Amino acid sequence: MLKTDQIESPGLTVVLEAITPEAEQLIERACRTCYLSFHRYNPPESTAELIQKVIRKQHHSVLEHAVATFRVKGASRVLTHELVRHRFISPSQESQRYVCYADKPGRKKTRDFDVVTPPTFKYGARDFSEKYLEAVQRCYDLYEEMLDAGIPPEDARYILPNGTTSEIVITANFRELRHFIWVRTNQRAHWEIRQLAIAILKIMKERAPIVFWDFQIDEQNMTATGEVQS
Amino acid sequence: MLKTDQIESPGLTVVLEAITPEAEQLIERACRTCYLSFHRYNPPESTAELIQKVIRKQHHSVLEHAVATFRVKGASRVLTHELVRHRFISPSQESQRYVCYADKPGRKKTRDFDVVTPPTFKYGARDFSEKYLEAVQRCYDLYEEMLDAGIPPEDARYILPNGTTSEIVITANFRELRHFIWVRTNQRAHWEIRQLAIAILKIMKERAPIVFWDFQIDEQNMTATGEVQS
Amino acid sequence: MLKTDQIESPGLTVVLEAITPEAEQLIERACRTCYLSFHRYNPPESTAELIQKVIRKQHHSVLEHAVATFRVKGASRVLTHELVRHRFISPSQESQRYVCYADKPGRKKTRDFDVVTPPTFKYGARDFSEKYLEAVQRCYDLYEEMLDAGIPPEDARYILPNGTTSEIVITANFRELRHFIWVRTNQRAHWEIRQLAIAILKIMKERAPIVFWDFQIDEQNMTATGEVQS
Amino acid sequence: MLKTDQIESPGLTVVLEAITPEAEQLIERACRTCYLSFHRYNPPESTAELIQKVIRKQHHSVLEHAVATFRVKGASRVLTHELVRHRFISPSQESQRYVCYADKPGRKKTRDFDVVTPPTFKYGARDFSEKYLEAVQRCYDLYEEMLDAGIPPEDARYILPNGTTSEIVITANFRELRHFIWVRTNQRAHWEIRQLAIAILKIMKERAPIVFWDFQIDEQNMTATGEVQS
Repeated sequence: MLKTDQIESPGLTVVLEAITPEAEQLIERACRTCYLSFHRYNPPESTAELIQKVIRKQHHSVLEHAVATFRVKGASRVLTHELVRHRFISPSQESQRYVCYADKPGRKKTRDFDVVTPPTFKYGARDFSEKYLEAVQRCYDLYEEMLDAGIPPEDARYILPNGTTSEIVITANFRELRHFIWVRTNQRAHWEIRQLAIAILKIMKERAPIVFWDFQIDEQNMTATGEVQS
Repeated sequence: MLKTDQIESPGLTVVLEAITPEAEQLIERACRTCYLSFHRYNPPESTAELIQKVIRKQHHSVLEHAVATFRVKGASRVLTHELVRHRFISPSQESQRYVCYADKPGRKKTRDFDVVTPPTFKYGARDFSEKYLEAVQRCYDLYEEMLDAGIPPEDARYILPNGTTSEIVITANFRELRHFIWVRTNQRAHWEIRQLAIAILKIMKERAPIVFWDFQIDEQNMTATGEVQS
Repeated sequence: MLKTDQIESPGLTVVLEAITPEAEQLIERACRTCYLSFHRYNPPESTAELIQKVIRKQHHSVLEHAVATFRVKGASRVLTHELVRHRFISPSQESQRYVCYADKPGRKKTRDFDVVTPPTFKYGARDFSEKYLEAVQRCYDLYEEMLDAGIPPEDARYILPNGTTSEIVITANFRELRHFIWVRTNQRAHWEIRQLAIAILKIMKERAPIVFWDFQIDEQNMTATGEVQS
Repeated sequence: MLKTDQIESPGLTVVLEAITPEAEQLIERACRTCYLSFHRYNPPESTAELIQKVIRKQHHSVLEHAVATFRVKGASRVLTHELVRHRFISPSQESQRYVCYADKPGRKKTRDFDVVTPPTFKYGARDFSEKYLEAVQRCYDLYEEMLDAGIPPEDARYILPNGTTSEIVITANFRELRHFIWVRTNQRAHWEIRQLAIAILKIMKERAPIVFWDFQIDEQNMTATGEVQS
């Protein structure tokens, strides 16, 4: 069966860049170290039984031995500002200090400028998308003009809107991924980070079905619920 | 002598909200626990001697027993996005999800909208400040219009510029404060976070002169250098 | 009313060495920064209402602004080996590399040698306390002999038993203290660390009654239960 | 060429259990995200150039995307007590609460009991090894007797010496591994943890030669020195 390592929701792309090989068996072996119960090591049966038992007992620390890395494209800096607060997620993020969204004297544009448009901007009769994109364009035009006048990108960016997209690579262990998913797929979480958390959950449910077994996705409401608080 | 617990640089206000009482003596006593050398406890002489010796040996962990809390006003979300990446700094930040910068149906504006203007915008003959503030105003006008139409603040904010100010309270122990100051007063750091790091350093040099003794401030270049890497 | 900042259980002494002044009001003010709701700041009424609401919603991060420091005497290295795994607890511990429990050539004994005796050693008709202390004494005698022969304390200690006491100073913020208490007052936790967690809880219930309001102590079973998972 | 993933020093065995596949290229790609400089991605030439440049500039955070897991056998609890203080190392350790080193009523011994003997015990004319092992044996005999009398292993272990071996599995990212090696191969570090740090360094120099390029091992003194403080 093919692995789904790439999830694309409108505007957001999440790609699995790396994952611990045979992650769940590694977790099982690490966990069996605590009890020296290697005679019971008989994957995959023993793996599911042991891991789900320790998760239910909230011995989450054994999940720290396996990690996954995701490349996220199309997220706004609204989302990344929330994301980088998770201490146990390691981020490497496109820097608005070094990246140029427009040509500047002596240096070419790094990439095209882009923004995220919240779905609520176009809802029923109401439609603010066009006005939003026009306002964004005016900000961008000034950014371009300032770069042209020699203002460094790290300062010109002050006029760029929150909605500006930002590429980011994140690495986290499975314990932190369960925690991130637990708090960020909740209906109280903001829709954009919920979108990211659900994309990550979908990939993890395929790649580590034992560890993420209890999370159920509600596609309609873009939420998920797990059995064990994490 | 009066303590200076509030530093105001143009636009940025940093106020010490709390600090461990008799912090340096606490650090000394904690440190003496490692060697059970309480018979040498004779502050303030013994305090300076011991603490500076262990800092020079990079036994920074003893500095974790003392903490300080700062309220920062007038920082942009450019700065806070960098700031919250410091894992050992605990932040509580004004949320653009819950705070309104304009009246909305059924709810009053929480506070006036405000932005940081980078000093490079007005330099020599060049002056982009006015153009910048005009562009900012257009963003804000659309924000206001969207709130009026029932779009929630958490989405309307996508049009607000990076330069938007954001109030934040941060707590960190002295080890992390030394580290934060070490990396963020460096000339390679962005000017706005350098401004914050130097304000914090000034307060700490008054309140914990022994722990921060080696940092020298260069007011002209808005940088600082320490003797011991942290 | 007098504050109880020192708890002595048989053999274990826990003393509060430092605590954030007006900690709960500081937490409230930090928390109100998120919503800029300072107009509702009216301690102590508003403090209890806000803090307990955010704890119930598991917005635990605001509890990171207040910290407490404890000096623990009479704990065994069994306990401290468990204790120092808590990443957000900052420890400074008596070092068996530098401290001598016996005179050695050119250097006096730092302190008397001491061990913890588990209560199960003397239970009903069974009594292993004496045998235990004899075995401990033989270990100590060899330790002394090795020091006398010039073997450094950091190596001679290999013969010292797990039960050897170790002084330790720990600092943690209130979020971590709630977590530590949550996991370490549970009946599955080892009795010695439970004893420490309960002593800390007793002090915190006096010093920060709002933050630790939900924990109930069961003295008979030396356990505690909280309402909100932490 | 064969990979050396297992290092055996007298008594200590360190086995690489897992490592991020193509770790250094992953780090390079993550790092290039900051500058969106993928057009310069041309491994392995570009990998060494970029990674060593960012390490020299102490942008260590990009090293967090790759991790390694080691199984350590034959270490004493002296070593593990030091080891588990490293917050960014994730440990799963043989538990003396659940593991039995002797038969007990209704349950078989989990494994044979074993201790580490410090090399200083036998040096020149002096030889304490035999006396040490006799004292250890007496401790073990009492442990066995207590288990037989129904005392739980978690309490009987109080008589077991510090030198008792303990199996442990540890996972850490490359940033933390560089830090661990930096502080624990220093001549001031205790010889047993130095032995572990050097074994890990040897494996990492084969598996990630670019990231660990600057560390030089001094076999005679069991130390190592790196060029870049970590």
